Amino acid sequence: MADKIYRINMSELSSSIEDVPESWAGHGGRGLTSTIVAAEVPPTCHPLGPNNKLVIAPGLLSGTVAANSGRISMGAKSPLTGTIKESNAGGTAAQLLARLGCKAIVLEGQPGDDKWYGINISADGVTIAEESELIGKGNFAVVETLEARADRKKGIIAVGPAGEMKMAAANISVKDPDSHIRSVGRGGLGAVMGSKKVKFITIDAGEGKVDVADPEAFKLANRAFAKALIDHPVSKGLGQYGTDVMVNIINESGGLPTRNFSLGQFDGHEKISGETMHDVIEERGGKPKHGCHQGCVIQCSQIYNDAKKNYKTSGFEYETIWAVGADCCVDNLDHIAEADHLMDDIGIDSIEIPVALAVAMEAGVLEFGDGEGVCRILREEVAKGTGLGRIIGAGTAVVGKAFGVTRVPVVKNQGIPAYDPRAIKGIGITYATSTMGADHTMGYAITSNLLNVGGSVDPLSNEGQVELSRNLQIATAAIDSTGMCLFIAFAALDDETCLPALVDLINARFGINLTGDDVVSLGKSILKTEKAFNEAAGFTKADDRLPEFFSTEALPPHNVVWDMPGEEIDKFWDF
Amino acid sequence: MADKIYRINMSELSSSIEDVPESWAGHGGRGLTSTIVAAEVPPTCHPLGPNNKLVIAPGLLSGTVAANSGRISMGAKSPLTGTIKESNAGGTAAQLLARLGCKAIVLEGQPGDDKWYGINISADGVTIAEESELIGKGNFAVVETLEARADRKKGIIAVGPAGEMKMAAANISVKDPDSHIRSVGRGGLGAVMGSKKVKFITIDAGEGKVDVADPEAFKLANRAFAKALIDHPVSKGLGQYGTDVMVNIINESGGLPTRNFSLGQFDGHEKISGETMHDVIEERGGKPKHGCHQGCVIQCSQIYNDAKKNYKTSGFEYETIWAVGADCCVDNLDHIAEADHLMDDIGIDSIEIPVALAVAMEAGVLEFGDGEGVCRILREEVAKGTGLGRIIGAGTAVVGKAFGVTRVPVVKNQGIPAYDPRAIKGIGITYATSTMGADHTMGYAITSNLLNVGGSVDPLSNEGQVELSRNLQIATAAIDSTGMCLFIAFAALDDETCLPALVDLINARFGINLTGDDVVSLGKSILKTEKAFNEAAGFTKADDRLPEFFSTEALPPHNVVWDMPGEEIDKFWDF
Repeated sequence: MADKIYRINMSELSSSIEDVPESWAGHGGRGLTSTIVAAEVPPTCHPLGPNNKLVIAPGLLSGTVAANSGRISMGAKSPLTGTIKESNAGGTAAQLLARLGCKAIVLEGQPGDDKWYGINISADGVTIAEESELIGKGNFAVVETLEARADRKKGIIAVGPAGEMKMAAANISVKDPDSHIRSVGRGGLGAVMGSKKVKFITIDAGEGKVDVADPEAFKLANRAFAKALIDHPVSKGLGQYGTDVMVNIINESGGLPTRNFSLGQFDGHEKISGETMHDVIEERGGKPKHGCHQGCVIQCSQIYNDAKKNYKTSGFEYETIWAVGADCCVDNLDHIAEADHLMDDIGIDSIEIPVALAVAMEAGVLEFGDGEGVCRILREEVAKGTGLGRIIGAGTAVVGKAFGVTRVPVVKNQGIPAYDPRAIKGIGITYATSTMGADHTMGYAITSNLLNVGGSVDPLSNEGQVELSRNLQIATAAIDSTGMCLFIAFAALDDETCLPALVDLINARFGINLTGDDVVSLGKSILKTEKAFNEAAGFTKADDRLPEFFSTEALPPHNVVWDMPGEEIDKFWDF
Repeated sequence: MADKIYRINMSELSSSIEDVPESWAGHGGRGLTSTIVAAEVPPTCHPLGPNNKLVIAPGLLSGTVAANSGRISMGAKSPLTGTIKESNAGGTAAQLLARLGCKAIVLEGQPGDDKWYGINISADGVTIAEESELIGKGNFAVVETLEARADRKKGIIAVGPAGEMKMAAANISVKDPDSHIRSVGRGGLGAVMGSKKVKFITIDAGEGKVDVADPEAFKLANRAFAKALIDHPVSKGLGQYGTDVMVNIINESGGLPTRNFSLGQFDGHEKISGETMHDVIEERGGKPKHGCHQGCVIQCSQIYNDAKKNYKTSGFEYETIWAVGADCCVDNLDHIAEADHLMDDIGIDSIEIPVALAVAMEAGVLEFGDGEGVCRILREEVAKGTGLGRIIGAGTAVVGKAFGVTRVPVVKNQGIPAYDPRAIKGIGITYATSTMGADHTMGYAITSNLLNVGGSVDPLSNEGQVELSRNLQIATAAIDSTGMCLFIAFAALDDETCLPALVDLINARFGINLTGDDVVSLGKSILKTEKAFNEAAGFTKADDRLPEFFSTEALPPHNVVWDMPGEEIDKFWDF
């Protein structure tokens, strides 16, 4: 079955299934979302107006049995940053869409009235139905109700109350194989979906299957690829302790942003570390290893139960644990898990919101360390859209502006994640130059700065960081196009069999003959497409800078500042 | 007495009185604030951090008997827009500072603790004293208390609760000759003063006097100048009906932004017009004519009493009446007067706040037309810094972001004032290109677009608007440097004796020989200084654009959109 573009117009409540333009054919995932957004969205449009489009695309390898290929990309002009945006997650939607032959959903326009809609996509096409029962409901209720409504398993993509309220930090939830939730977290894409009055999209793949041009070659390549993933020591650490394995590593490095980025180490780090979490999970009969999508061989997710051994959350990530934990000084893992659960249910970015809360703590809205207060604000303010809830829900930069705070860790209005750029300078280049605002996943320089993956670059020196971030961002843009989880990068950087196997997978899937160089070219061209959109939207190199306080406030324990010259940062784009 | 720079460092709680550098000597008012900010403030600094500076400067002619020369300029990097900012007001401070020989106050640094301070400036120098009694108090209480404390009349510059809370729309209040309040309104300069923990500055001029180099020539020039002002028909209209004379004029033109910039005419315009206000004032024993500073011959201010004939507000401006009135659809002048009074007391911009409230109304926070609701939000939310109050206090753009509204009338994050750029295109060029965000006073194209002052340019055509705005912005930058009220511009544009008389005044004051061309050069160089600061802060021509909705939503009754090409706008800077 030839892949098609599913175009859904919410102004007209109509849809069409279109052939894929030739220039889009080689793209998938982020490459495709960015290509379509750049082609069809006016860069200066209001992100929540009818001219923005939400593009949802499985990766090039999604729907196949290739290991770790179940990520779904979503893209639009971001209401948080004003830049082009792609964010991706696991769950079942990527594989189901791919099996339906849906190369991308393009959700455009917006209704002229206040009605809400649910969309179903199946082999019979697209239906758009008015929805009222689920409006105002949290994601868990949405998933439960939609599953009860359906006679068979469907994929679900949904927004919670945050998306309905068009909060700039609203995310989009994707149902995972266990009917839990994965999040397309960053950049406020949930607000874009909400602005189009779409509460959910269900996906029924029926008997659809992905055609593989050379099944035998595919099988061989997948075997080599999966082996490389499984064998890498970082994969093992991720499987055992989850991404939260990073707490102790980053704390040790002195780059764990603590108390709203005023310290580089957190006294309570042991209490929230991956090692501790692992023990708590085991004690309470949870699951320390769990895949966010079928076919994952790393299994960094987990099932975290509460003290009564009832399910509390899954996909309990380092970034969230760091943000509610070290950055807000909360050293109680159960409070953090409750906050994670609430943010999943509200449908809001679990990085942006606690980073914003730490700024609010600095303004005196609540005390640092008050984990119950964090949960109360999420439940009583953010979920209900009160004044304070709207401030927090609009993200870190708005909190800074509303309360007149000067230590506001954002780049292009997006909250900076779990690695302080003063002590880990490579990631600072990524924050500064990323086409999507501060985002560690765009070029995870922690690899060479701290993990000795793909070589080693001194984290405290300015030397070599630009090149490191550049190479990583190019590779990441390509990986994000395949539907692969970014965690294949560790093996790809260290194991010489990994990347060739990935290229072989793509070639076997489509019957083509890409080389490693083609993949690098793809990554470069995606970054340039994204940058051109941002330039047309008004961004310049002056936006590729970190906030003033990183240069003026030294970070303990290394007592370092961010002193990367602007001209050095700008060399990032020399390719 | 030679003029001096009074430098006050709030990090050290110290002050120094310095000679004026030669390159600053020819500057006053806005020319001086912008010159000093450009020279001493790092363009990328946080506006509320220690590296921003608040510069306060009387004009070149302030402190003399020259008609209408009592405006005081204040400048800094704006917390609202991120651009350089100057805003000016009447009151007594300009004349008192000039008589003290203070060419500018440079307020820099910020205390490391939470203490608040009051500053007194007199012939004996500067004193900085800790203040507690007045912290949290509104401007009226501040003025009353400070007057009670002093044994003689002093000038007062103060911030209200909004400035203390560092709200991005906080203004700075200046006491007028009747102990009422004039506002340095736009751009959030009150937050900068608040960030430096200065609640007020009192000025005691003692027996100080301004030296005039050629008193006889000065007297003659002032006579001609004052006559030109008095004789101009617009001056007469302003004296009779206040600036609110514009309501009917702009409504008639179809360019009165109504219901959050969705209509060009307001049904209730008669109820809030200058003509109606005049009658109400007379009925209630108020004062229809009143000067905001000594020496004003236009007297556009007034004393507006409530229904019980008690004082309610003064300086009750068209912009405020339009914003609470037409833009929020409130057709009750007493509600608008109460809102004006509250905003003066809270110390917050009476343009930005109602423009922000209209956006909040569109989001459903309160009903359009609910004047009591506006007052309640000001009193119960903004003044108290609740969540909603913080959103409103942060200005129009933040309200739009917090509530996900797409019709958000701002340029460079500053709320657009009382003239719709779709129907009055010259002012649209000013909004787009002003170095300070949307601001009608930067180049008041209403002159030729509607008032037949300085010629006539069709308001609905794109032709001639760039040149019109350019000439006005250059002239305005120069006028803002003299300490003159901008309303001298009407006479200056139409009466050929006016501008030469103004130049003669400056020459007689300083014993120099400027020509009209020198004044134009001064205006140009101020604009270029300001633009260079903004460019270094990261602004580009992409920021010189109006929001998308002006191009996509036609404005009744003319059903016109903003369709000025970007390249045309950019020609503004061809000088």
